Amino acid sequence: MIKVAIGVDIGGTNTAIGVVDKDGTVLVKGNILTPGHGDIHKYIEELSTAIHELINSLKKLNKDIDIMGIGIGAPNANYYTGNIEQAPNLSFKGVVPFIQLLRAKFPDLKALAITNDANAAAIGEMIYGGAKGMKNFVIFTLGTGVGSGIVVNGDLVYGHDGFAGECGHTVLVPNGRLCGCGGLGHLEAYCSAPGMKRTAFELMAKYNDTNSELANYNFHELDSKIIFEAAEKGDKIALEVFEMTGKWLGQGLADTAHHLSPEAIFLFGGPTAAGDFIFKPTIESMEKNLLATFKNKIKVLPSQLKRGDAAIVGASALVYKELEK
Amino acid sequence: MIKVAIGVDIGGTNTAIGVVDKDGTVLVKGNILTPGHGDIHKYIEELSTAIHELINSLKKLNKDIDIMGIGIGAPNANYYTGNIEQAPNLSFKGVVPFIQLLRAKFPDLKALAITNDANAAAIGEMIYGGAKGMKNFVIFTLGTGVGSGIVVNGDLVYGHDGFAGECGHTVLVPNGRLCGCGGLGHLEAYCSAPGMKRTAFELMAKYNDTNSELANYNFHELDSKIIFEAAEKGDKIALEVFEMTGKWLGQGLADTAHHLSPEAIFLFGGPTAAGDFIFKPTIESMEKNLLATFKNKIKVLPSQLKRGDAAIVGASALVYKELEK
Repeated sequence: MIKVAIGVDIGGTNTAIGVVDKDGTVLVKGNILTPGHGDIHKYIEELSTAIHELINSLKKLNKDIDIMGIGIGAPNANYYTGNIEQAPNLSFKGVVPFIQLLRAKFPDLKALAITNDANAAAIGEMIYGGAKGMKNFVIFTLGTGVGSGIVVNGDLVYGHDGFAGECGHTVLVPNGRLCGCGGLGHLEAYCSAPGMKRTAFELMAKYNDTNSELANYNFHELDSKIIFEAAEKGDKIALEVFEMTGKWLGQGLADTAHHLSPEAIFLFGGPTAAGDFIFKPTIESMEKNLLATFKNKIKVLPSQLKRGDAAIVGASALVYKELEK
Repeated sequence: MIKVAIGVDIGGTNTAIGVVDKDGTVLVKGNILTPGHGDIHKYIEELSTAIHELINSLKKLNKDIDIMGIGIGAPNANYYTGNIEQAPNLSFKGVVPFIQLLRAKFPDLKALAITNDANAAAIGEMIYGGAKGMKNFVIFTLGTGVGSGIVVNGDLVYGHDGFAGECGHTVLVPNGRLCGCGGLGHLEAYCSAPGMKRTAFELMAKYNDTNSELANYNFHELDSKIIFEAAEKGDKIALEVFEMTGKWLGQGLADTAHHLSPEAIFLFGGPTAAGDFIFKPTIESMEKNLLATFKNKIKVLPSQLKRGDAAIVGASALVYKELEK
């Protein structure tokens, strides 16, 4: 009997589903489209069908599985209510009672839980990844945006309303860059993948540098992967993008550390593939910004969740956290 | 039988001691000098004597008291270890095993606990004050410095090492004002009582305003009380000091809210006596800086602990939190 948890990652265009074993390995996965549905009921129907198909495909392989529950990561998901609330990038609008609707399809499962993707990543890191055994840590997810999940005394911090952990929207630079949320100078506007592109464009403008490889890409084309590859070849603009990104991110991590004094801060997402290019300046800047009492104590580590599967693996981990109760 | 807890507030020059009942009322109080002692053992001796004298004075009044324990608030105190560690403003240096030494004097008491003064204020607010029944809130103590205490899921956040809750040292203005800790642009350098004085001096310099009442005070003399009194009379510089302080503080509170999504943020300390002068711009600025999901949900409230006794009352509350375990 293999214990498994089902992880569902709801994105703007795609919903990924996986059956995950206790080691965090995805045994089988599938996906359905998120948008284009007239209503949430049709989507829940399709999601349930897809989940049942995955379960059946395992059973056909004579796998003897015990399904512990379903964990869901989704933007604007509220753990307390089980709702997805006012998610700007999802096709179903308003307040959607997601867990209630899904529960009707899986009345006998022990655990059903939903939270946002960064919180799911934090729990994934705790159950399967580098945060095993840690009671106080934070994860920053660097992607199109910057999300964060905070663990204190072994539990995820949801706050009074379920929406805690929006460290990407703290102010790094007063009256600075416009953030996707409409605010100014937020960490996300500097340390996300698009933030790195913006930094590259600022630096090309500053130095009028036509020798940089990055000068060949327009604002649509340039991304953090191209910047990383240029940095590896010694491109000065690209190298300075990483220095600047690390300087900003380190300032943000120090602010978070001063709030929470975590044992470790994990970094997850595309830009972290650049390894030392991003970790070194980030750690230097964080240490520079920390109070003496905090220096040289807080680890900054790459997430141990496998890149491609991390979102569904993280979501599935919610199930085990839920069963602890 | 009246249940009481003893609260001890250790400051740089003075140690205040009080016997506090379950409503947070100080039944009797006293104090000893903190510095000038050759060693910590002599200080512990004097502290124990003073505590015993207070207890005896209540017994002489025929009060039938049941002493639940001793709670101590002190700078750089570590809840986990019971030590005071490298406190720059205390006469005993290095790592002092405070609880261990005090335990030897009170071997039979149920609870002995120590933490820093802002954490003690948070627990005081939760046990006796405005945060009764709240599970997620934060307190900012505005004084010579700015401290903070964070409560998540009903428990104080100590972090992995006991030193969490240093929100006063988050960066508000990159490369801004020099903070007492040596950092640049920290919240404490703008929103503490001395921070307000610094703002007043900046504004007088900016406007070359010789009509302001504040122009009569030198840098030693001016304090937040004088600024408040001038603001009440309509002094333009003083009014702008409160506007600016609120703007900065609100930015900081929004950063904290984005981390933790608390039900309320309490403000404590001298500058809060100014009421609307400080609360109004602070709340406006916080709301302006919050993500849509967070707006109009988080209360910003004055601490309900009585000003003069708050430190010992807060420290005494540690005892009840400890007994919950």
